[in-house]
Parts: sequence; structure tokens; C-alpha cells
Amino acid sequence: MAQPQTAITPTRVEDYPEWYQQVVRAADLAETSPVRGCMVIKPWGYALWENIQRSLDAMFKATGHKNAYFPLFIPLSFLEAEAAHVEGFAKECAVVTHHRLEAGPNGKLVPTGKLEEPLVVRPTSETIIGDSFSKWVQSYRDLPLLINQWANVVRWELRTRLFLRTAEFLWQEGHTAHASEAEAREETMRMLSVYAEFAESYMAMPVIQGEKTAGERFPGAVDTYCIEAMMQDRKALQAGTSHFLGQNFAKASNIKFQSEQGREELAWTTSWGVSTRLIGALLMTHSDDDGLILPPRLAPTQIVILPVLHKEETKAQVLEYCHKLVAELRNVHYHGRPLEVELDAREGRGGERTWEWIKRGVPVRVEIGPRDIASDSVFLARRDLGVKEKSSMPRQQFVSYAARILEEIQTKLYDRARDFRIANTKKIDKKDDFYAYFTPKNADKPEIHGGFALAHWNGDPAIEAQLKNDLNVTIRCIPLTPEKAGDSGLHTGAAPRGLDPLFAEATPGTCPFSGKASPRRVGFAKAY
Amino acid sequence: MAQPQTAITPTRVEDYPEWYQQVVRAADLAETSPVRGCMVIKPWGYALWENIQRSLDAMFKATGHKNAYFPLFIPLSFLEAEAAHVEGFAKECAVVTHHRLEAGPNGKLVPTGKLEEPLVVRPTSETIIGDSFSKWVQSYRDLPLLINQWANVVRWELRTRLFLRTAEFLWQEGHTAHASEAEAREETMRMLSVYAEFAESYMAMPVIQGEKTAGERFPGAVDTYCIEAMMQDRKALQAGTSHFLGQNFAKASNIKFQSEQGREELAWTTSWGVSTRLIGALLMTHSDDDGLILPPRLAPTQIVILPVLHKEETKAQVLEYCHKLVAELRNVHYHGRPLEVELDAREGRGGERTWEWIKRGVPVRVEIGPRDIASDSVFLARRDLGVKEKSSMPRQQFVSYAARILEEIQTKLYDRARDFRIANTKKIDKKDDFYAYFTPKNADKPEIHGGFALAHWNGDPAIEAQLKNDLNVTIRCIPLTPEKAGDSGLHTGAAPRGLDPLFAEATPGTCPFSGKASPRRVGFAKAY
Repeated sequence: MAQPQTAITPTRVEDYPEWYQQVVRAADLAETSPVRGCMVIKPWGYALWENIQRSLDAMFKATGHKNAYFPLFIPLSFLEAEAAHVEGFAKECAVVTHHRLEAGPNGKLVPTGKLEEPLVVRPTSETIIGDSFSKWVQSYRDLPLLINQWANVVRWELRTRLFLRTAEFLWQEGHTAHASEAEAREETMRMLSVYAEFAESYMAMPVIQGEKTAGERFPGAVDTYCIEAMMQDRKALQAGTSHFLGQNFAKASNIKFQSEQGREELAWTTSWGVSTRLIGALLMTHSDDDGLILPPRLAPTQIVILPVLHKEETKAQVLEYCHKLVAELRNVHYHGRPLEVELDAREGRGGERTWEWIKRGVPVRVEIGPRDIASDSVFLARRDLGVKEKSSMPRQQFVSYAARILEEIQTKLYDRARDFRIANTKKIDKKDDFYAYFTPKNADKPEIHGGFALAHWNGDPAIEAQLKNDLNVTIRCIPLTPEKAGDSGLHTGAAPRGLDPLFAEATPGTCPFSGKASPRRVGFAKAY
Repeated sequence: MAQPQTAITPTRVEDYPEWYQQVVRAADLAETSPVRGCMVIKPWGYALWENIQRSLDAMFKATGHKNAYFPLFIPLSFLEAEAAHVEGFAKECAVVTHHRLEAGPNGKLVPTGKLEEPLVVRPTSETIIGDSFSKWVQSYRDLPLLINQWANVVRWELRTRLFLRTAEFLWQEGHTAHASEAEAREETMRMLSVYAEFAESYMAMPVIQGEKTAGERFPGAVDTYCIEAMMQDRKALQAGTSHFLGQNFAKASNIKFQSEQGREELAWTTSWGVSTRLIGALLMTHSDDDGLILPPRLAPTQIVILPVLHKEETKAQVLEYCHKLVAELRNVHYHGRPLEVELDAREGRGGERTWEWIKRGVPVRVEIGPRDIASDSVFLARRDLGVKEKSSMPRQQFVSYAARILEEIQTKLYDRARDFRIANTKKIDKKDDFYAYFTPKNADKPEIHGGFALAHWNGDPAIEAQLKNDLNVTIRCIPLTPEKAGDSGLHTGAAPRGLDPLFAEATPGTCPFSGKASPRRVGFAKAY
């Protein structure tokens, strides 16, 4: 049998969904668990999540938020307080009904100690955090209240996929309360822009910032905003949401304050979150048929050193040279932190060792053998290039260029993903064209279809429903215009990116589905 | 009514347990929640936990551990696999029995979607992590496997106290698997020494390292080791545990590997954990009747700048001077990190503003008014000294001494706690003396009693039971001797501390309770 030409089988073209699962496995990111729908996040996947957390957490703190922690359990009565909210979450939650186990007649354990009021494992924390806010907020002086929580949440899902949809997942949820609608709206947009900046500058994943239509709103929200990214199968993935909750949850939780004028008023609240789903998004944005490709700013290991240890007589010399190089590189800073360098001196693994790092997506691999040492140079491979595109470079030059090489990879990954999105986004003005665009050419490969479509829409939900039914296509968002977009006030990117003019343009036209007037084009796609 | 002389009412002497609750409240660390036994960790308490996490996490990684994440839920059958373990945890756990809610006849939500097998919210994760380990470990080359998890856990407690005992708490749990008993034992002791080093060097809390007696072991462990600290009411608090699990959990979870000799063998495992309980321990080690006192290495804010803004005409000048000082101080490094400095420029709060920072335990307060600026000096108050012991210092001198002042406070807190423990530890050789030592002089204040006792014990569990029954006194640990103690290999302390010779001494004698021979003295105390 011929050697497979790629590390991942099947390839993206052969079977995209299965390719995804195989990359998760090959990169050692996570695995399914014996608990229905729950995943085990393995060390490499968790290290990636820690880097995502660290970067986001710094952005939250720089925009004035503080972390806190609230109970895992929510009393049923809390959930019931907001009608739309309970409607949205009651159907898929884990319910705790007992607080003890005792041996039953057959010796098996059975739940005993029935609770008076069942508890729900939090699917999101608006209501339980709202209860605290109602105590913390008395006067306008206590506002704004800007809180974030890093936590696990549970939404009982029947069909799960690692990172993309799991019963338990890790996330952060921001919850804020404000004295005025304007302030709360500003916060909603600010945090959306923080998410966009994180996605683009750290994940190297271009996103569209936009507003959800009424049907896609968070249960209980007045307005929901999102960032949407294009995966390599041209489907959209919602990577983060920011909700303007109006006074709905303040009413449900009784968050009131005395205004500067001495009046008792309801607060205005927001919430916003991103989750371990981002890891799935990152994977599907950059990976190839050899496995994961990590953007350098989030890679747990940015450079791996692979000493060539075939010969007993040169082994000590090679290792010493490598250790010296590791020390030199760790003195280099990239994006404000010392380089993350790993030396993999495991022996007797041959090509397997190198392939492990390729599949795990480490941005730069450096091989060093006796011949490289003789010329005081290193043999370099970049994960964003082909596996065989290696080059030699003088050691000293490599050390001084290392951070620049990483930033070049970071930028290139972003550009490549943006180019892919541009190539797979189309302005469509006719219904037939729209249907053709989203109809798979090959019934065996339903995942192969057009991509993103920018089309006019007159605002009628019946059209949304029809397109979802006919094509499984939804309005991903009504893209933001520059006037509406928020500003994180942070500038962490290599270059300021901002809104993509292709999407941000908001000129009126005719809805191809109804023939009626449309205020602007909106973004359509199939989605995760 | 006279002004109370302390910020906290009651004082420690008046009512210690109530003083504890009042310090938690005054320092704004946490509050009870409407969910039975669960707490809300407020921003100041959570920031402290984040600092604990960051310091410990770095120590875990420096000793070769990697973080991962495992499911929140444990199937009943997993819990049942280790007999002693289920016995220890089944009585106090949250049980998920349903996965849906539907409106019942009266419109109220009722649980539906009954699970085939109930799920337990993890009280600890040996069994669910063991399941993953059984897949990850195939060969001796996969060992040692060194994993840590940061997570929430739930143990249904009837009587709860913020941080000290809550139904849900946050913790880390290390889980490791090894090829030999010796290696697993070495790991158990290494992690105990990491905990001891963290407690002493970061928390400024002296601890005794020791082994638990059989009756106090973790359910399912072969040996349990612990660090024990003395609180200001002279009771002991178990601040961390490290368990040698032998092959018990490997057997229950089927963690097998092929040895270097090609034999199939069971792995040897360990587990170790510390929790948000540490915050309670820290509070009771250092706080006084004015509130919390934070060791500088863990304080979320190490220095707070309080501008005197009484006069409109000097306000701008004072603020400018303060901002400059903040910037200067943030360039100073303390213990490897930039100083954490906060400027509190809130107006119109008078003494309340200062007292807020006193009660929150910030190590250094700096007041700056026009007169200080005139002499280019600052007015300094240290939280470890009396509230009125303030001193003036030239600004430049303060900036250069700031890190040294903080380290002086850190060391002083440690020394003070150690001196307190020495003063309240007694070698006791007669049963009557022992009973007198632990019998409160005043029945109204049962918390006022001797302290720690070092007494001989012949190893008979009946004696332990008797003392627990008569005096509510337990053997906190059999202190480690230098030969037995582990070595973290890390040296983060200002000065290496090691075992306290008072406790580490292991000479034989006579058990005062049985008259029989005793191999050594063990540590007795009342405990949290």
C-alpha cells in the first residue's frame, strides 16, 4: 500500500467533517468522554485555551472589567423569572434533584435526599448574577458594574462535536449593569469590538461584526451582536456574541438604583461570551491536510527544537548546542512575552517525532544536526509553508529574526484566511442565483457549496424561515457600519484592521426574494 | 455611644467565629448566595484567588505538570468502582437525574427527560480522570503522566462557612500515574513540599508537613499527607493534602502499562489538591480587628495611593503628582513582577476611603497632599503596623525602597505567625495536662483553649476516638522527619524554611494515654 501523502486521512476535500475530527485527534487537543456529550480537553488543547484566556482576560481588564465567581447551580424560580430566557434554555439543561446516594435493594447506588426545589446546572448566568447585582447596586455611584466570569456551563445537547458543540463547555461570560441605555449600548459594542480584535489579532481569523436578526437573538436579549467567521468548508461559525439586554433582566432580577436625581430606576444590562468553541473555529480556519496550524500568538509552543541524535559520538555536542539555542531564544520577546520554546530530545522516534509537531501545528520547527553545528546554522521549517520547504539560516540570524518570523506567520495566516473569505463571498441579486449558489453540485458532498452571500433582504422573517427550510441557509448577521461599530480602545493588532468594507457597505436595494425595498445587504451562509 | 475602636465588630477576642464572617464581609471577599451552601466570590476575593492560582500554577508547571480538563459529571458506575471512595463521597453529592424542564400542570417547571444512569457532580475527579488515564497509558514510555486540573467541585455540606466549607468550591486537583511505587511516593512528597513552600513563601503562613493517621485518610488512599496551619484561635486548619493512592485507583480504572520488561502492570497513582479554603486560612492567619491583612506577594493591590483632594485649587497638582508616582512605582519589580499599584481618586468619601483599603488588607497605603508635594515626600502607612503608625519618606527613597518594604512586610507576617504558633504549641507528657490544655477556661468561649500539643501516641485508633469524643481534639498529623520530607526543587522563599525542628523531632517515648511505648510525638489540635 502506498504511503498516504498527508498526515490526516481523510483530507478536507475527501470528507470535511471527518477531517475535523481527525485533526482534533492528531493534534491531541481533546477526546470524547464516557459522559454523554462531555469532552476531555487534553493538555495541548488546554494550553491553547489557557493562552486564549490569558489574552482575552488582559483585554477585559484593560477595558475596566473585574473577574468574580458565581454559583454553578441556579434555582428553578430564578430561571422562570425571565419568560423568553426560560423558554430558550429549559429544554436542554442538567437538573439536580437529589443530594445523596444510598445503596438500594440490589446494592446499586440510588439518589436520595430529594431537594425541595430542583437546581439547574447553569447554561448561562444572567439570572444568578442578576441576583448578586441586585444587592451590589444601590446608587448610580455603584454603576457601571463591569464583571466577568470564567466558568463551565452545561447545555444538554443531543448531537455533539468536540469543541463545536458539547454538553459541558468552558467559557467566559461578561455581565455589566449601567445607569443608562446609551452606556449599556456602548458597552455591548465595545465588547463586540474586543472580540473582533481578539479574533483577528490573536487567532488570525477575520470576522464580520454584525447584528443578529430577531429570530437568532439570545433568549431574553433586546439586541444580539456577533462575530462570524468563515471556515474552510465555507460555512459560517459564530465565534462570539454580545447582548444588549435592555431592562429585561434588571426587571427579572430587580436590579434598581437611585439615580443622581434621586429617582429609583431599573439598570440597563449587557452580557457577552466566548467559549472553547473558539478552538474549533481556530482549527477550521487554519489547519490543512497535515493537521493543525497554530497562529504564533496563541501557540503553546512557538518554536520546537529537534536535535538530530542518530550518532552516539555527536549526541552530547548536538544537545549542548541545542540547549544553548533554547536559552538564547527564551531571551527573545515576541508580542510582549518571552518566546515559548521546547526542546524535544526524545530518541528513536525517527520521523514520527517531527510529524507529531507538524500535526500539533507548532509554527516553527528547527532541526539541528552535526552538519548544521559545523556551519553554526539551523535548519528551519515553517508550519504555514509546505512540509518540504525547509531552509538553512545562520544561528545568530535566526535568533535575531525569530520574533519577526513568527509575526510574519501570524500575518500570513490572517491574510490567507481573509483572501479565502473574499474569494468565497459573493454579492447576489437574483433568487435563482442565490439558490444555485447554496445548492451542492454533488449530492454526496453536501458541504461543498458557495460560501457567504451578500444579498438584499426586506426584513421579513418569513423569508428567513423559507431559506432555512429550502437551503439550510441563515442570515448570519446584518453587518455593522462604521458609525455603529464600537471601539475597544485597545490596539493589539499588527495593523489596525477594522470593518471589512465589502460587508460594512450599507446601500439600499431590492430584496430578490420579495421584490420589495431593502435597506441594505445582509450576510447569508450555512452555519455551524 | 462611643465610637468603636476597631473597624471590625466583634473583635477576635469577643467572638472569633463572628469576627471571621465580618472580616470576609468588610474586605468584600465573598457573600452567601441564594443557592444553599454555594458562595459568590466577589472581585477582591477572586483577584486573591487568581494570584494564588498564578503562583501555584507556575510551581506545578516548573515541576513538570500539565493542565487539562475533565467532565463535570461522573457516572454512578465510576464512583462505585472504588469501594472506600464511594463510601466517603456518596453521602454528600449533587445528583443530576434529568436533562429537561417542562411546564407542569400548575405552570411551574418540572424536571423531565430522566437519565438512564444518574450523574454525580464531581466531588473530586480520581475516577473520571482515571478513565482517561487508562486510555492514555499503554507503555512505560507514557509514564510518568503528570496532570493538573483547575475546576469547581461540589460536596453537599449542611453547615457551611464562606471559604472554609462550602457546597461548591474552586480548587486544583493534581493526578499523576507512575511506573513504580517509589516514583509515586516521591511525587506525593514533592507536591506536599510544593504546597508547604507556597504556604510559607507566598501566604506567609507557616505549616507543619505530616502524615494523616488511618482514620483521617482520603477515601481510597493508601497514605494521606497534609500541611496544617495554626489559626489565630489556635485551631488547626488543613490547608492542602497529597495522597499516595497505591494501585487502588489504577485497579478501579484499569490503568495498566507494559513495563520495560514487557510485563503488563498496574500503574501507581497520586492525587493532591488545594482549594479556595486557602483564602479562609490566609484570612485567619494574618487579619486583625481592623480587617484583612494581605501578604504582599498575593495582594491584588500592593500599594494604594490616596490623594488628598480637599482643596479645589490644589487638586490638579496633587493628582498629577500621584499619577507620576504610580507610573514610577509600576516600573519597580517585586518578586519578578511589576508592582500592583492603585490610585484611588474618589472624592467626598473622607476617612471611609482609607478604611476601605485598611479593611481590604492592602499592604501599603500612601497619602499625598499639597504639603507632602511641597517637600517631595509621601506619607506612608503599613498594614502590618498599627493604624496610626504613619511616617513620612522622601518620594525618591520610597520608590527605591518600595519592593524592599513589601518584602519586609511579607517576612514580618510570616515571622509573626510562626512566633504565634511557637507560643501556642506545647509538649505534653501527662494525660491530665493534655485534658487541661484543651479544656476551655471559660464555657462561654469554647474557642479559647491551649493550641497545638505535641504528645506521644502508641498508634491506637481507640485513643484517637476517645480524645475526639472527650475534647474534640484530633491528631492533625504525624509530622515529617527530614529524611521523609520531599523537595520541590523550587526555591521561591525569601529564605529557605524547611521543617520546623520542634515538630520534625522523632524520638521515642511513652504514650500518656495508654502508658505504652510510642515511636514519636504527634501533633494534636482542635481543627476546622
